Formats: sequence, structure tokens, C-alpha cells
Amino acid sequence: MKKYISLDVGGSNINYALYDEKGDKLYNSKKKTKAINGKDFVIDRICEIIDELMEKGKKNIEGICISIPGIIEDNATIVFCPNIPFYNINLKQIVEKKFKVPTLIENDVNAAMWGEWRNTSKHYNNGIGLFVGTGVGGAIIINDKLYNGKGGAGEIGHMNVVKDGIMCGCGLQGCLESYVSKSGMMKIIELESKKEEKSLLYKFLKEDGSVIKSSSILKAYEKGDKLAKNLVYRSAEYLGSAIGTLVNIFNPDLFILGGGVMESIGEYMFDDILYHAKESAMSSLRDDIKIVSTKLGDDAGIKGGYYLIKEYLGDKHA
Amino acid sequence: MKKYISLDVGGSNINYALYDEKGDKLYNSKKKTKAINGKDFVIDRICEIIDELMEKGKKNIEGICISIPGIIEDNATIVFCPNIPFYNINLKQIVEKKFKVPTLIENDVNAAMWGEWRNTSKHYNNGIGLFVGTGVGGAIIINDKLYNGKGGAGEIGHMNVVKDGIMCGCGLQGCLESYVSKSGMMKIIELESKKEEKSLLYKFLKEDGSVIKSSSILKAYEKGDKLAKNLVYRSAEYLGSAIGTLVNIFNPDLFILGGGVMESIGEYMFDDILYHAKESAMSSLRDDIKIVSTKLGDDAGIKGGYYLIKEYLGDKHA
Repeated sequence: MKKYISLDVGGSNINYALYDEKGDKLYNSKKKTKAINGKDFVIDRICEIIDELMEKGKKNIEGICISIPGIIEDNATIVFCPNIPFYNINLKQIVEKKFKVPTLIENDVNAAMWGEWRNTSKHYNNGIGLFVGTGVGGAIIINDKLYNGKGGAGEIGHMNVVKDGIMCGCGLQGCLESYVSKSGMMKIIELESKKEEKSLLYKFLKEDGSVIKSSSILKAYEKGDKLAKNLVYRSAEYLGSAIGTLVNIFNPDLFILGGGVMESIGEYMFDDILYHAKESAMSSLRDDIKIVSTKLGDDAGIKGGYYLIKEYLGDKHA
Repeated sequence: MKKYISLDVGGSNINYALYDEKGDKLYNSKKKTKAINGKDFVIDRICEIIDELMEKGKKNIEGICISIPGIIEDNATIVFCPNIPFYNINLKQIVEKKFKVPTLIENDVNAAMWGEWRNTSKHYNNGIGLFVGTGVGGAIIINDKLYNGKGGAGEIGHMNVVKDGIMCGCGLQGCLESYVSKSGMMKIIELESKKEEKSLLYKFLKEDGSVIKSSSILKAYEKGDKLAKNLVYRSAEYLGSAIGTLVNIFNPDLFILGGGVMESIGEYMFDDILYHAKESAMSSLRDDIKIVSTKLGDDAGIKGGYYLIKEYLGDKHA
């Protein structure tokens, strides 16, 4: 039976799996990325993992997909990767030379979106994925294919939503990410903490370290914490408005929402997101907005990678 | 020689032409739409025009394209048309029954964009058209095809650019259209006219009637009128910022800017538009933004219709 290798390389962990041709996982594990040790270390680690999976698959491997949290060119070269020191590295070539197995390199958000997209029961043509975590990742599917424009398209987290708004980590002002992501929420928590009022979030932020956990926001929210409620509502409002604008531009069949924030607090946000999406969409388009949440959790990236490499090798109905 | 009929039905005029298979115009004329006389009158007028062109073409007609300023379904049915009383009319069927010639119905902005797109000398994959006039029309091309999403996509004029901003004619607040179109400019002119300061635009607005002419804005601008300069700069700023956000989302090969405002004042806006586009695009994407102006003027719609029907009938390299 044909087998496929899929790695989802994150800033902290590498999630990796061996799939059979039906898409069932034969083996799945995780390793720390340890990006701080430099690019050669991470490349060696990726190769060790592939070795391990080749062994598990008795070398009977059809293809490999590696997803990376960076800008990827031609499914081969990592142009830039903010959290791992990869600059202009043709990882496809490195892996193909070493293992003689066809390999694809894909952006991590694209891979995760593809996993979720292929996992929807109905057949759709056009979809937009928004992954809200520390930042906001975006992915666009047009005519049932990942859309990259001239390369690196789908940066929906960096749509301008407030003219001359808050400074974003990317250097722009007023990006969606600054209002709905955990980074955006943290700025507000820090600002508010200087005021008199109390919030559980100040305590949680100290415990969590530099980035607040989604689960901490959920805990505070469920205890009725006022700041947490405000943050969650505000995030839903901006996310909904952005979705409304995306409806006016794309009118896609489906929006898929995921990421740590959505997975933790999404159930409290969905109604508000839909309300604000309708409010920001044109009247002729607003009655038919479909928003669903991700289903695959941490497996979205590796599952997406499996579908991508299998389809790349010719199986259109993976 | 094969011949094609193309009609561009506007709220005021119908521009129509007979094309040969090389895309040369054999005949071209205009008639008033007289939409106020009702739908049957306009349909009769469209049929009279087709009759006239069939006659000119000695009945040797391969296909017909009719572009309409409204929401079109399946290249056949006019779902809604703000300026002509067409509601759920299958115009394709009406014309095909009467003339027995394959017919396409297309949205007018899409047709004009397609004319301009096919007219560019280089081959591109993805493009966005923005037509700034009384309103702002938008059209999207993905993988060298007009993109409509679930239908009616490309409403780029109704991207939200200012949270809780000015009321737009569409019922939403803060749409791009409200800041850059002539309707948007007119609101400002009316507001400013209540203040003490003088502007040529107050006089021109009275002369022009309910909608100021693009040529009047140009005239005031070139005479150094302060309000006109502010309006033109403001329009360029918002248009540029929106383009920057569209780069982050789509990263297309090309933006095409047209419409009455751009045709009149565009030369004074281009540098500012590009400046603000770069300022609103992510650093990794901003150095490669390509913006060009339309070239075909009033002929864009009929030329686009010609390309569309010819390609629909199988000639991919029309």
C-alpha cells in the first residue's frame, strides 16, 4: 500500500505523521523544533524525522509534504520564515536529494486550510480560512485550489480594518490582526492593567508568560470577567466586519474559522461574528454567508500536507 | 467572415457595435436607454439594435453579448439592476428565442474589465479592476477568468475602509465608494459649501446638476482650487490604501484603474495612489505593485463583450 509522509513544522513543535493511501494515520508523533539552534539543526531534525518515518513505512514512501510557517516560493523555497532562521532555502531540493522522494514545501496556514477544506463533507469552489491565534493566518481557495497570487497572498490578518489604527507587528497600522489576535488582546490587557479596575486576565497573563493562553481567556470569560468579555466581543466584532468586507469582495461559498482563540472561545463568538458579518455585507449578499469552525485541530496541517502531496502526485480525489 | 454583436447597456446610453473576427469594429453607434419608459421599452430597444446590427452584418452573426449594470446570474438572468427596471429577467432566453444566436449577458463592470484585460500587451494571471465614477465598480480576474464567487462578487467599492464611517448609498457605513467616488466627493462639496471659504466647485456643481462632472473637478483642480485639490488627494489616499489591503489579500499581477474620475483626474492621482498603496501593503509585497490605467475609454464594455462571446464560442485566443 502507498504511504505518504507529512510534517508540520511550527515555531515550537514539529508534528509529523505517516499516512496510508486512504488517509489513515499509521504513525504520528511530535518533536520540539528548537529553532534557536539555527537552520542546520532544524534541517537535520526534519531529515531525522523523515528517516524515522521512512523506516516505519518500510521505505515504501510515495511523497513527502513539509509545511513551514513562512513565505514559500514554487512549493520549494522558503523565502522568509519569521520564527525559524530559514532565508532563501530550497528545502524541496535538500530533501529530494537526500531521500529521492517527491517533496512539496507549503505554507503552514495553506496546508491547514487544505486539510480542513478537503475534510468538509460538501463540495465547494471558493473558501476563505482565518486562523486566529497569536496572530491571524489567512488562506484563500479559488476554484478548489489554494490561491497564492504572485506569491504570499492570503494575508487576511493584514487587511486594514481601522484607518490609522493600532500599530501591528508587521509594521502597518490598523490591521485586523491587531484587533482580534492574542497579540492584539494582550496590548489591551496591558493598557487596561494600568487602570483601577480588576481583571482575572492580569493574573493569568503573569502566569502564562509573554503570551496569554487562549484557555486563560476562556477561563476568565466563563467566570464573567468584564475585560475578558469585552475582549471576546471586540474580537468577534472586528472579525465579523472583516468577513462582511470579504463577502463583498469574494462572495465565497464558505468561511472556515480556526486557530487557538477560535478553538477555545469560538462558541462564544460565533453569533456575534455572524451578526457583524451580515451587518458589513451588502444587502444582496448577506443572507447567504456560511461560516464553519475547523474540525481537525492540531492535525489540520499534517492532514492537509497528506492531501497536497497525494493530489500533486496525480490522485485528484485524495 | 465571422461577426459578433456587442451591446453595453448603461443607465443613460446604449453603446453598441458590430465586430469582425479580428476584433475590428465594422459599425458603432449609440442610442439613449430611456430606462424611465420601463423594462419592455428597453428590451424592445435592445432588440431593435440587434436587428439593426444583424442587418449590417448581413445576418452572418456568430454571437451576441449584452452588458448590463446589474447583478447577473449564469450569464443569463438579470437579477437586479439599480438604474433600469429589470428584475429577474432572463434576457439571454428572450434574445436567443428571437434571434436564434448564442447570447451572453454580463455585468457591465466585468465586461469593461475584460476588454481592458485582454487589451494589455502582457499575459497576466490575476488582476483587479477599479472603476471610479459616480460610484466605484470592481471586477476580479483569477487565473485569467472573471471571478464571480457565488455570484455578484467583486464589490470592491463596498470594502469597509473607515469603521463606522460615512453612510454609503448601499446602506453600509464607511465603504470605499463613499470616500473616492463622485457621490462621495459631492457630499463633501455640499458640507463645505456651508462654510465661509470659496470654491469653484460650488459654482460647477450648480451648473452640472445633481452630479458633478469629472471634468469640472479637473477644471477646478487645474485652477488651483483648494477644495478640489483636497478632494483629489483624499480620493487618491483612500484608493491607495484600499489597493494596499487588496495586495495583502490577493497579491495580483495587475491593478487596472478606470472610470470617469480616473480618466479626468487620474494623472494627478497616480503617484499618491501608488504611495498609499505601498504604505498599506506588507513590506514583503509592496515593492512589486503594478497599477495601470484603462486604455479603451467608452469602448471597454463593447470590446470586452466581443472578447467574451468570441471566447465563449470556443476561440480561446480572441
